[in-house]
Amino acid sequence: MADDSQIRIGVLSCTNIVRKVSRAINLAPNATVAAIASISNSIEEMKSFAASNNFPPTAKIHGSYESLLEDPDVDAVYFPIPASLHVEWAVRAAQKGKHILLDKPVALSVYEFDQIVEACEANGIQFMDGTQWIHNPRTAKIKEFLTDPASFGQLKTVQSCFSFAANENFLKKDIRVKPGLDGLGALGDAGWYTIQASLLANSFRLPKTVTALPGHVLNDAGIVLSCGALLDWEEGVTATIYCSFLANVTMEITAIGTKRTLRVHDFVIPFQETEASFTTSTTDCLSEHKTMNEIPQEACMVIEFARLVGEIKNRGAKPDGFWLSFSRKTQVIVDAVKESLHNNLERVLVSGR
Amino acid sequence: MADDSQIRIGVLSCTNIVRKVSRAINLAPNATVAAIASISNSIEEMKSFAASNNFPPTAKIHGSYESLLEDPDVDAVYFPIPASLHVEWAVRAAQKGKHILLDKPVALSVYEFDQIVEACEANGIQFMDGTQWIHNPRTAKIKEFLTDPASFGQLKTVQSCFSFAANENFLKKDIRVKPGLDGLGALGDAGWYTIQASLLANSFRLPKTVTALPGHVLNDAGIVLSCGALLDWEEGVTATIYCSFLANVTMEITAIGTKRTLRVHDFVIPFQETEASFTTSTTDCLSEHKTMNEIPQEACMVIEFARLVGEIKNRGAKPDGFWLSFSRKTQVIVDAVKESLHNNLERVLVSGR
Repeated sequence: MADDSQIRIGVLSCTNIVRKVSRAINLAPNATVAAIASISNSIEEMKSFAASNNFPPTAKIHGSYESLLEDPDVDAVYFPIPASLHVEWAVRAAQKGKHILLDKPVALSVYEFDQIVEACEANGIQFMDGTQWIHNPRTAKIKEFLTDPASFGQLKTVQSCFSFAANENFLKKDIRVKPGLDGLGALGDAGWYTIQASLLANSFRLPKTVTALPGHVLNDAGIVLSCGALLDWEEGVTATIYCSFLANVTMEITAIGTKRTLRVHDFVIPFQETEASFTTSTTDCLSEHKTMNEIPQEACMVIEFARLVGEIKNRGAKPDGFWLSFSRKTQVIVDAVKESLHNNLERVLVSGR
Repeated sequence: MADDSQIRIGVLSCTNIVRKVSRAINLAPNATVAAIASISNSIEEMKSFAASNNFPPTAKIHGSYESLLEDPDVDAVYFPIPASLHVEWAVRAAQKGKHILLDKPVALSVYEFDQIVEACEANGIQFMDGTQWIHNPRTAKIKEFLTDPASFGQLKTVQSCFSFAANENFLKKDIRVKPGLDGLGALGDAGWYTIQASLLANSFRLPKTVTALPGHVLNDAGIVLSCGALLDWEEGVTATIYCSFLANVTMEITAIGTKRTLRVHDFVIPFQETEASFTTSTTDCLSEHKTMNEIPQEACMVIEFARLVGEIKNRGAKPDGFWLSFSRKTQVIVDAVKESLHNNLERVLVSGR
């Protein structure tokens, strides 16, 4: 039986990301895997998946998503399903009172995501997108540094990139290159991280405008395999993002302030699981900053998510709206890049969206 | 007396950059400082400058640029004068048979620079622009790595930036922020380096198009204090450049290929004078590459320049046209960024220019 104080999380599908996140749930003292449902695996396959991934023996096996959402012993659901299915299942989960940990991209458009927002707000649901690096203790240190005028000064530009060279099989068959599934391609996947890095460096404020850059690559179905964009805020503060399925793995943030420069070379997935670093520099001096995390960043994410759900469940707190807002802003920028790509790289006004 | 095999270089003005370059000429075994001319210093001041910078006692003091250009004991001239004066004096030097080491930006436009090109070609003049990092042995190693398909793969994107936070005095009075002098601002200064880094990573081929990015900053006189641009080649190969007088010193190249990523954190001026490094990485492996140079990179530049002049002077060789062509391509891109900035950030076709 789950410890009463633990948040009981149901997971959907038997995929690799569920292996990783269920391990994280196991590592989080305030959460437990309570159930699994898959629409493409048999009950036997799910049982075997549960056993090989150390699910608690109490974890239930559901033959359908509906059945899992009806389960009174599930507090929250982790959704690693194609983005095209997010609206339907996240809205249904919210209506059943289940809290939501939703993989990025959170939807195929802000229009869709706003239906999730509405359902969460109407039902008092805690929402969080499944971006893990945001929860690494290093990220808090980076944010602290970037918002410290005394040492960093004022931000002038932040350049981030996340690329990996996908193999032929991925480029043919992965859901991230299929119009009917995660139809936002590299932009909704790798690009999501770079957009959040840009927002984080700008204290989570939306830019004024977004402009897609020349040189993007689409596949035959029109899905983005590689693209870049420029975001700009007032007074010449800019961010450039680059995301690609076609270039060697690179996970870079370079943020330049008036007084110092910050560099991270592994922002999405740190080179080491329980230790991470970044550097800061002036003309004369380069400093390395290290942070330790006893548990991997995905477990930090689960702990924070379960903590917020626990506050609601056990103390009658309200959901923390930051995470809905952060995901929505990210989706606004994803949409704007896509709009710019479709409109001859036109500059897209974003303020107020 | 100068060693007969040494190329005799005349320098113009008594500025800090002349201190640095005359030191480099002294360090270069195949060159010597043969003369100085300044239009804003007295003969006495020049004598004192010559002595305190260890010019050979044979170095002549000229009261005017004309007089230095007439000097039969001068083979070549180093021009650290405002860009607005380049056409006039470089053309006159070429007509007098003097080889030319010209500071960047080489001119205020390609239209102007083509007059220098014509004068050099008509008079068999060796030309080189005074960009020093290109001559660091590290740069040759970087180029070798970036053009090795077996280890780097194909280039996908190169992102470079050169910024420094200029002080108030610079921002008010430096020739680089004055329309009548080096009227190209940060673009012609810091931007020059990033454009050359982009060209180097692309085997010195001009991009198809150039697009200035939103978020640029101009001073009251319309001079660029900070800007970015996107260059693109065929098949989704891109470069982004960022140059600024308003942000902490940063001298970065990140080049991402299909197989590896290259990073340089000090490409313009290495942290150490006689040693430099860069890193390359794959998913699993980060390697540091070090190069040693016995003499600083500016002396490497002088040695190469003097070697080429020596080939012409002593062996009847023809000038090496690479350097004229490289400077011209850089100037083409500078012009295109400026054109884009003036035309609402329009994309500018560059091929064939």
